[in-house]
Amino acid sequence: MSFNSFGRVLRYTSWGESHGVSVGCIVDGVPPRIDLREEDIQRDIDRRRSGLSRHTSQRREGDKVKILSGVFEDKTTGSPIALEIVNEDARSKDYSELARLYRPGHADYVTERKYGIRDWRGGGRSSARETVMRVAAGAIARKILGCSIVIRAAVSQIGDLAVCEERWSWDSCSVENLFCPDVETLASWQSSLDVARRAGTSLGGRIRAQACGVPAGWGAPLYGKLDADLAAAMMGINAVKAIEIGAGFDVVSRDGVANADEMAAATAGDEGGQGSRSDPNFLANNAGGILGGISSGQEIYFSLALKPTSSIRKPLRTVDKSGKDSFVETRGRHDPCVAIRAVPIVEAMFALVLADHKLLHRAQCG
Amino acid sequence: MSFNSFGRVLRYTSWGESHGVSVGCIVDGVPPRIDLREEDIQRDIDRRRSGLSRHTSQRREGDKVKILSGVFEDKTTGSPIALEIVNEDARSKDYSELARLYRPGHADYVTERKYGIRDWRGGGRSSARETVMRVAAGAIARKILGCSIVIRAAVSQIGDLAVCEERWSWDSCSVENLFCPDVETLASWQSSLDVARRAGTSLGGRIRAQACGVPAGWGAPLYGKLDADLAAAMMGINAVKAIEIGAGFDVVSRDGVANADEMAAATAGDEGGQGSRSDPNFLANNAGGILGGISSGQEIYFSLALKPTSSIRKPLRTVDKSGKDSFVETRGRHDPCVAIRAVPIVEAMFALVLADHKLLHRAQCG
Amino acid sequence: MSFNSFGRVLRYTSWGESHGVSVGCIVDGVPPRIDLREEDIQRDIDRRRSGLSRHTSQRREGDKVKILSGVFEDKTTGSPIALEIVNEDARSKDYSELARLYRPGHADYVTERKYGIRDWRGGGRSSARETVMRVAAGAIARKILGCSIVIRAAVSQIGDLAVCEERWSWDSCSVENLFCPDVETLASWQSSLDVARRAGTSLGGRIRAQACGVPAGWGAPLYGKLDADLAAAMMGINAVKAIEIGAGFDVVSRDGVANADEMAAATAGDEGGQGSRSDPNFLANNAGGILGGISSGQEIYFSLALKPTSSIRKPLRTVDKSGKDSFVETRGRHDPCVAIRAVPIVEAMFALVLADHKLLHRAQCG
Amino acid sequence: MSFNSFGRVLRYTSWGESHGVSVGCIVDGVPPRIDLREEDIQRDIDRRRSGLSRHTSQRREGDKVKILSGVFEDKTTGSPIALEIVNEDARSKDYSELARLYRPGHADYVTERKYGIRDWRGGGRSSARETVMRVAAGAIARKILGCSIVIRAAVSQIGDLAVCEERWSWDSCSVENLFCPDVETLASWQSSLDVARRAGTSLGGRIRAQACGVPAGWGAPLYGKLDADLAAAMMGINAVKAIEIGAGFDVVSRDGVANADEMAAATAGDEGGQGSRSDPNFLANNAGGILGGISSGQEIYFSLALKPTSSIRKPLRTVDKSGKDSFVETRGRHDPCVAIRAVPIVEAMFALVLADHKLLHRAQCG
Repeated sequence: MSFNSFGRVLRYTSWGESHGVSVGCIVDGVPPRIDLREEDIQRDIDRRRSGLSRHTSQRREGDKVKILSGVFEDKTTGSPIALEIVNEDARSKDYSELARLYRPGHADYVTERKYGIRDWRGGGRSSARETVMRVAAGAIARKILGCSIVIRAAVSQIGDLAVCEERWSWDSCSVENLFCPDVETLASWQSSLDVARRAGTSLGGRIRAQACGVPAGWGAPLYGKLDADLAAAMMGINAVKAIEIGAGFDVVSRDGVANADEMAAATAGDEGGQGSRSDPNFLANNAGGILGGISSGQEIYFSLALKPTSSIRKPLRTVDKSGKDSFVETRGRHDPCVAIRAVPIVEAMFALVLADHKLLHRAQCG
Repeated sequence: MSFNSFGRVLRYTSWGESHGVSVGCIVDGVPPRIDLREEDIQRDIDRRRSGLSRHTSQRREGDKVKILSGVFEDKTTGSPIALEIVNEDARSKDYSELARLYRPGHADYVTERKYGIRDWRGGGRSSARETVMRVAAGAIARKILGCSIVIRAAVSQIGDLAVCEERWSWDSCSVENLFCPDVETLASWQSSLDVARRAGTSLGGRIRAQACGVPAGWGAPLYGKLDADLAAAMMGINAVKAIEIGAGFDVVSRDGVANADEMAAATAGDEGGQGSRSDPNFLANNAGGILGGISSGQEIYFSLALKPTSSIRKPLRTVDKSGKDSFVETRGRHDPCVAIRAVPIVEAMFALVLADHKLLHRAQCG
Repeated sequence: MSFNSFGRVLRYTSWGESHGVSVGCIVDGVPPRIDLREEDIQRDIDRRRSGLSRHTSQRREGDKVKILSGVFEDKTTGSPIALEIVNEDARSKDYSELARLYRPGHADYVTERKYGIRDWRGGGRSSARETVMRVAAGAIARKILGCSIVIRAAVSQIGDLAVCEERWSWDSCSVENLFCPDVETLASWQSSLDVARRAGTSLGGRIRAQACGVPAGWGAPLYGKLDADLAAAMMGINAVKAIEIGAGFDVVSRDGVANADEMAAATAGDEGGQGSRSDPNFLANNAGGILGGISSGQEIYFSLALKPTSSIRKPLRTVDKSGKDSFVETRGRHDPCVAIRAVPIVEAMFALVLADHKLLHRAQCG
Repeated sequence: MSFNSFGRVLRYTSWGESHGVSVGCIVDGVPPRIDLREEDIQRDIDRRRSGLSRHTSQRREGDKVKILSGVFEDKTTGSPIALEIVNEDARSKDYSELARLYRPGHADYVTERKYGIRDWRGGGRSSARETVMRVAAGAIARKILGCSIVIRAAVSQIGDLAVCEERWSWDSCSVENLFCPDVETLASWQSSLDVARRAGTSLGGRIRAQACGVPAGWGAPLYGKLDADLAAAMMGINAVKAIEIGAGFDVVSRDGVANADEMAAATAGDEGGQGSRSDPNFLANNAGGILGGISSGQEIYFSLALKPTSSIRKPLRTVDKSGKDSFVETRGRHDPCVAIRAVPIVEAMFALVLADHKLLHRAQCG
């Protein structure tokens, strides 16, 4: 029921504003005796960190995560794990004008309307700053899932420029490469981002994510649906405006035969890919690995739309706190395409949803 | 934490299988002293009922809803409201073959994998039968929201045939008209559905929904996000594979200037449209009425993709319980395009999410 | 968050008023493939049923429970199990005077203050009628726990008359014997109850409950504490005003040495009583089988105080809806000592709490 | 569902072990625009702090609370409020022997059985150290309740020595006075505690708490019962073994007439005591201010039993990790009577439960 929590038996609750003392989170319900060190978490955080490329925001923070509780002699104890990152480089002067202006596309106006008060420094609670803790929590979730489950995401489109599916290579998806799975597309993205930046504007993006190795049977038929939980998790990431699971919107124009994921008997000796030996061979995966809310043992995949960041240099019409017409231009440090930095966040939320469902499934079905 | 519940302070929990004794639900947390009669609920149920058109499933049920509790002298008392519909016309013989076969695209296989047991009669718990209770609960949610908030949905595309935006008319969206907002498109849909049915296949569809009159301030910045809750609610409807809020996937290829929803001072005397007089004039609504998880006072709108029903007459390859190759063809009564019957369900889930957030907002912000 | 739900992963939600259509509940999260028939549940309900003794209320209902969902071919499927009992013998005319009067000790006045509306027929939602569903749900919980865990309760005192600890015999605790574990005390209770009834008054009672066979390790250190959950569950039973776990209030006047539950090495060959062979021998059990919120493997026991029923024939001063002085005397059918009928309810709630913690423990610790 | 959370719409989640980096908590759902400074919270923490009297543990910590988030310009923003206290004086060497021994009455043994791992430094998560954060959160809860609601608790008995009801004075209940409401009893408590300390043992205690000014109507009839939530909250405090609300166990030996809380019409001009003018005059308060789970507008009061601390100097029989017989004597700093320091914790949990119900009531009933 908490407004700042996520998950059912693996439960994540976060705190912190962009320019407050620190951001942090509590991850509760973690199974005991899992190896966990700060560096395991730091590794994922570094993948999200800004300042590594000229195409992501220039705020340079050490972003050193600290484990405050729940770990003893490098193992989880079953107690809640609190993680914290101190906000070092928080120049709130950059934002002072925003105390009186509402930035279009931001939560400024609605926050004022909801709460009657607003921490205007850097977007306060609505800043993407909080997402660093999701990445941190996601590192714990991956540990719970174990190494047989591989979760990864990539940027598949920036503006009009989509990657070529045939050249898709997960290996090239590094933070230095803008999480681009297609090195031939990368150069065009970079110039496109430079153009956008110089024009004082920003670009939208698309992210594709997948999880391999998830066994059949996680999820639930109606309200603990794996796809519903994934949809909520992803739609809860800043700037995400759409999600499609499996074939997504393409199913609209398909007929039932074309969209069917037929099954065939497991091939003799077949033990790979889709889990245990007795799994059937699925002849297609339009469903995206989830049937009726429950994992099928196939690859789970989905795609997200992220809007161009609303923080742009180009002046936009807006109103001030008194309701009068005004203009606003954003001078702070901002990413021209937020989809890039969102990749590790998508992976983290994906891992958190799956780990929660792993434990839930164990609760009911042993 | 319940697998069969939905909502935070307005909480819906359902029971029932397609061919069990009955389907029902409990709606908990309903404010007291709201007028409520069975006929208020029945009206919405009738909009969902099958058998009204030759393009929806031919199962003919009275679907008479009964209020079991929580209402006294035609007013809600604040106690949980239980609703029940007895399953009258449940011909389980139609499905007997399915005890040993897994239908592609259905939950048959994953249910067996998850639970090790399966009520195979008509899909059991995973049948769309349960959605009738969501429609019933949605009728209560609308009462909580009051008549200043108008929620409606329509089919905007079937197969390749999208309606013409210019001719969009909510008035023509009746159950008899396949919830089509464009009478000129209706005829082509009907022939397309006839073709599909004769070919033993089915068609995908798209639904668009909107809510007008929602005040600014409902939702929360991070995990009680209005858009995240809507995404989960919609992705939890059978056959839904994608959701886009506001401009959705179109934002990918847009730049930040084109996607900005600029604001201007409220016009003198302006009291309509977006709520109270002091609301700014939004010059666009690409965000779909939700900013940073909180309603902006604008129209909230989104669009959904529904896959073609997996229950088709055309034989499909599958496996049986022993893992051997087989074929399955569905002979039961099924809709060639499930998007049509999903319209009242979408509206109901939309209403339930909004009513929950109305009460949540009141809890925290008075 | 629901007001009418109970439990974390095994979740119980109920509906119904004393004189409404029916009372019922949904038990969600039940593991699949457990044998379950209506008669398994009916057996426990019959133990609670009124009319079996002249010392319990004379309302005679069939109280036939019906399973509406979640069971297929006599096995649980993992889907929510809905149970219902139709209210057959609901003479609301008995209560009509209560539409305008507030009975002291009842929820009449506070219900009116909270909701501004009140179903006055027989106490409405606040009637003990709802507890029949807890007993029903408890029967399912016992199945989840399995037969190695034995839960039982007895009346240990009525008015001033406590049973003799030395003569305590669980075998004599039948519904016909007023759940009295000491046949020599029984006769004095019966005459005491007759006296009270004739005098138009009622008597308080004490219940003692225990669970044997609970393994060490269920519960959690802080907010999922087994004792805290038991306290909530028991205090939620109508008329319960106090709970003491283990030595309870006796600990106040004890010193730390006297209250210590010392441990000794397991005796060679010792496999009984406290679980697995390597369990230590506890030399006392003042803690009541729960240490720091977690079961120790010892017997879990507690004691409850139940107030004399507030529904008595003797006229009591009260006010009416307009706030004017009045008198009320209860003429309906009521138990002179509600503790008697509460025994199966206490057992049921005990079982529900333990079963929930069994599944919770499995979720986190495997 | 979280194991380390508490509350429904006002939700408290904590982290931290006795000898970890820090203890902290997140309080979520706090209404916006409430004045809040660190010193408001510090005041309550200081009342709990050890070292103020020779009868409480000698661990001297600054216990300076820090607000990490959710407050802007000394007002709550509606965002989660994180509070942290760094563990300064954590001498883990005191406890090193405990790595291999299980202290009777402590969670050592059950923690090992549950999780298979144990942070043995000072009791780890099960230490009373965590309760400092409840006191901190309680200070926020009091702010939500406002100054018309007064919550207070006192020690009413230590060992055999109960205070005299006639001399009860809330004014003398300071931390220096061991929260004793009767100065004449105080001296006997002090010598009794000195005797216990010298004998290497400890004493049990009883706490009485009350809340005045709670309006009629908070709570819910069945599972959101105010008394059930209070019972869980109190039983979740370390060392609490029993709770009685209102007349508590005394009701067992009473009859229905003696236990009735009769009502009379409000006296003309009566506006004090029990809330609004139209409230009836209750002629007694055996129920403790809660009827059927809902506040009646009367004083809410209850009483708790706290066991003598299990950490005593006197050697006790126990077993070590290998299951062998051993002895343990506690040499760390410990309170001879934990009831004393529990007083502010009881008040804090009381405030948290009431504040949660205030918001819950607002959600449903406006």
